Amino acid sequence: MQKKFIYLTVLSIFLSCFAIAQTDDSLTIRKISNEVLANGTAYENLRYLCKKVGARLSGSPQAQLAVEATYKMLKDAGADTVYLQPCMVPHWVRGVKEKGKIKLNDRTTYSLHLCALGNSEGTGKKGLTASVVEVKNFEELDRLGSEGVKGKIVFFNYPMNPTYVRTFMAYGESGVYRTRGPAKAAKYGAVGVMVRSLSSNLDDYPHTGTTLYNDSFPKIPAFAISTNDAEWLSLQLKNNLVSSAYLKNTSTMLADAPSFNVVGEIRGTEFIDEIITVGGHLDSWDLAEGAQDDGAGCVQSIEVLRALKAIDLKPKRTIRAVMFMNEENGGRGGAKYLEIAKTNHEKHIFALESDGGGFTPRAFNLDMNEGKRQKVISWKNLFLNYGVYDLSAVGSGSDIAPLKLIGTALAGLSPDSQRYFDLHHAVTDTFEAVSKRELHLGAVNMTALIYLVDKYGL
Amino acid sequence: MQKKFIYLTVLSIFLSCFAIAQTDDSLTIRKISNEVLANGTAYENLRYLCKKVGARLSGSPQAQLAVEATYKMLKDAGADTVYLQPCMVPHWVRGVKEKGKIKLNDRTTYSLHLCALGNSEGTGKKGLTASVVEVKNFEELDRLGSEGVKGKIVFFNYPMNPTYVRTFMAYGESGVYRTRGPAKAAKYGAVGVMVRSLSSNLDDYPHTGTTLYNDSFPKIPAFAISTNDAEWLSLQLKNNLVSSAYLKNTSTMLADAPSFNVVGEIRGTEFIDEIITVGGHLDSWDLAEGAQDDGAGCVQSIEVLRALKAIDLKPKRTIRAVMFMNEENGGRGGAKYLEIAKTNHEKHIFALESDGGGFTPRAFNLDMNEGKRQKVISWKNLFLNYGVYDLSAVGSGSDIAPLKLIGTALAGLSPDSQRYFDLHHAVTDTFEAVSKRELHLGAVNMTALIYLVDKYGL
Repeated sequence: MQKKFIYLTVLSIFLSCFAIAQTDDSLTIRKISNEVLANGTAYENLRYLCKKVGARLSGSPQAQLAVEATYKMLKDAGADTVYLQPCMVPHWVRGVKEKGKIKLNDRTTYSLHLCALGNSEGTGKKGLTASVVEVKNFEELDRLGSEGVKGKIVFFNYPMNPTYVRTFMAYGESGVYRTRGPAKAAKYGAVGVMVRSLSSNLDDYPHTGTTLYNDSFPKIPAFAISTNDAEWLSLQLKNNLVSSAYLKNTSTMLADAPSFNVVGEIRGTEFIDEIITVGGHLDSWDLAEGAQDDGAGCVQSIEVLRALKAIDLKPKRTIRAVMFMNEENGGRGGAKYLEIAKTNHEKHIFALESDGGGFTPRAFNLDMNEGKRQKVISWKNLFLNYGVYDLSAVGSGSDIAPLKLIGTALAGLSPDSQRYFDLHHAVTDTFEAVSKRELHLGAVNMTALIYLVDKYGL
Repeated sequence: MQKKFIYLTVLSIFLSCFAIAQTDDSLTIRKISNEVLANGTAYENLRYLCKKVGARLSGSPQAQLAVEATYKMLKDAGADTVYLQPCMVPHWVRGVKEKGKIKLNDRTTYSLHLCALGNSEGTGKKGLTASVVEVKNFEELDRLGSEGVKGKIVFFNYPMNPTYVRTFMAYGESGVYRTRGPAKAAKYGAVGVMVRSLSSNLDDYPHTGTTLYNDSFPKIPAFAISTNDAEWLSLQLKNNLVSSAYLKNTSTMLADAPSFNVVGEIRGTEFIDEIITVGGHLDSWDLAEGAQDDGAGCVQSIEVLRALKAIDLKPKRTIRAVMFMNEENGGRGGAKYLEIAKTNHEKHIFALESDGGGFTPRAFNLDMNEGKRQKVISWKNLFLNYGVYDLSAVGSGSDIAPLKLIGTALAGLSPDSQRYFDLHHAVTDTFEAVSKRELHLGAVNMTALIYLVDKYGL
C-alpha cells in the first residue's frame, strides 16, 4: 500500500511535470507561430530569390548571386555567424534553345514542347534525326532489345499514376525513366531519348531533371517532352503516322566549378558543440525560379533562425541554417557538409530538411533509431494546431542524408504534395505559385521541432 | 471461466466482424479514390462553370445559365432524376463601374481600388463627397458617436488577424465590420462606409461580400477597399493629410427574381425515403468566377454521384446532390430546401456541405448529437490516407444549416484554409487558382463519408 502510494505520488509528480512541460512548450510554440505568421520574412526573402536572382543552377552566375543573397539574409535574420563552405560543383549548361520536331508520313511537322534533361549531352548544332520507338517501361525496352532500338530515338511514356494520393510515390515510380532511361536505351544502341514529363497534369510544360549516364555506354542526348505532347505522339505512333523525329540541343557538361554552401549559426548557450542543422537547397533548375524547389526550404530555414532570435529564445545547442548547393545534379553540397563535419569532428545530433515545397504542412518524416523516433512522436500533439499531424513515415532529405553516416538523427518536412508535380522542375515553379501563409506555416512547424529537439536533446 | 470464455468469444467475433467491415470499407474507399483521382470530372465541370458561365450572382442571367449547366452535369453524372426547386431570390445589381477617390490637402487625388459591398445602396450618379473618419472597431465607433460620425464616411480598418492558423476565425472576427459596420455607422448619421477588405494579403484587390442593413436606419452606400489602400489611407489620416473622399456606385436592389436549386438524385435500393444530401452553393459574387467559392463545392457534390455510379455502388438510401441558390446574399435556396422537405414530410438523415473551397482536405466539421458524432468519429481511420484526419470541430454549411430544424445530422468538408482569403469574393477567385488534385481529393473524402453514412445509417 505504502509502496503503491509512493509509486503513485512519483507518477503523479512525473505526470504533472510532463503536463507543465507540455503547457510551457505549447505556449512557446504559440509564440513562435505568432511571430512567424505576423512578422515572418520568409515570403519576402523568397520573392527576392525568385525575382532578383532567379533560376540558379549549380555553377551559374545566378547560383553565386544566390549565395551572396542568402548570406545577407542570414545576417539580417540575426545569425551570430554566417560563413561559406567552399565546394566544387558540376557545371552543366543548357546551351541554345532546344528544338524538337516530329515529321509525319504526310510530311507535315509538329513542334514539340521539350527541354533537355539535366546533365544531358548535346546533339551537336546540326541536331539528330531518327525514327522513334515508344516503350511504356523497361520490360518493353528489354523485349525490343538492340534489334528494336538500335539507331532509334526511344520514347519512354510512363505517366505518373494519378491514383496515388502521395504524389511522391508516383514520382518515384515514373522517375526512374528519366534518371535511368537514357543510359538503358544507350545500352541497346539508341541514339537519343525522349521522356514523358514527370507532371501530374496534362499540359504543355516540359519538366527537366537529372539523368544519370552509365560510363559503359554512350552518353546519348535526352529530353523531356510535355505530357500533352506525350499523349499526342503516342497516338501518332499507334496509328503508324510518324516518319521521324528531329532533336537538337547544345547542352554541355563543363569542368567542375567552385561554389559554396551558405551557413548561418546561432551559438548554443549550454552544449555549444552539439549541432542541430536545418536546411534546404539553394540551387534550382535553370528553367524556372525554383520557388517551391527549393527556394521555399531555404527561406524557411532562415526563418527558423530569425524567429528564435525575434522571440529571444536562446538555444542550448548550436543551431545552423544551411543553404546546400547542388542538390539537383550532383549532391556535392551535402557531401561537402558531411566531409567538413567529419574533418572537424563535429557532433551532429539532428538535421531537418525542407525540400518538398512550401505547401501547407502535414507531416514530418523521420529517419532515426526507434528510441529517438518515439521521443519525437511524443511531441506530436504540440504540432496539431499548426497543421502537422503525421510522424509515421520514414525519410528526411537528400542534402542531409549523408549525415546518417555519422549517426545523426534526420527528419524532413513533408508538406501537402498535391500541387508539387504541377510545377516541379518546370517554368511554372514561380514565386506566384507559393502561398505566403502556407510557406510561413511550414516554418512555424520547423521552428517548433528545432525548439523541442534543442530543449530536450535527441 | 466459462462465462469469460463466452464473453471473449463473442467479443472476438464482434471484433473480427468489425475488422472485416473496416477492411471492406477501406477497399471500397480505395476504389472510390482511384475512380475520382483517375477519372473524376469535377475539374472539367468547374472549368465550364468558371469559363463558360462565369460569375453568377442570384438573379443574374449567368445564375440561370449555371442552373442549366449543372442540370446537365448531374444528368451526365448518371443521376436517376434531376429536377429544379423554384425559389425567389434577392436581385442585387452592381450598376456602373464604381469609383472612389481620396482628395488630399495638397489637392492631389488618389484613386482607390474598391467595390461596393453586396446589397449596398447606390450613391446616385453624382456620387458622394464627405470627410473620412477611421475606426479600428465598434468600440471606437461608439466612442465617436453621432458627434464624431454624422455626415462623414466611416472607414472600418480592422485587419484579419494573421496569427490565427484557422483563417475562418480571423474572418469571423473581422467579418462583422463588413456585415454590420454600415448599419452601425448609419445609426450615428454616417453617409457612407468603407471597409478594409477581408483578405489575408496586402494587395490591390477589393473583396466584396454581403452587408446587412438595419431597417431602423438609412441604407448608406458601403464599399470594400483593398488592403493596400486601407494601409495607405490609414497613414494619410494619421498624418492629417486627407481632405475628403469621393465615392460613387449605382448599385440597386431590384425586386426578387425567380431562380432554382438544382437537385440530382440516386434512388436508394432499401430505404428509399431516407435522404442523404451533399451540396454546395451555385451562386457566386459578381466580381470573379466563383471557383473556390463555391463552384468547387458544386462540382465535388456532382462528383459524389458520378463516382458512386461509376463504381456501381448502389446506395441503400437516396443520395441527393444539391446546388443551392443564393447562399451569398440571402440564403433563400437553403431555406426553400427545408421548406420543401417539411411540406413533403421528407426524412433527412444526413447532409454534407462543401463551402470552404476546393483545397486539400483536412477535416470534416460535424453538427449532430453525441451518439452520431461518435459513430462518425469511429470511421476516422478510414479517411487518414486521403487527407482528412480531424473530426473534432463543430460546424456544417449555411445552405444545409436550416435542416437542423428537422433534426438532420450535419457536416461540412473543411479543407486547408490558408489560401482561401487570398481570393475570397475577389477577382482572383478563378479556375486557375484551383488544383485539380486537391479538388478531387476533397471529392474522394466526401464520397467516402456519404458511402459510410449510407451503409451504416446515422
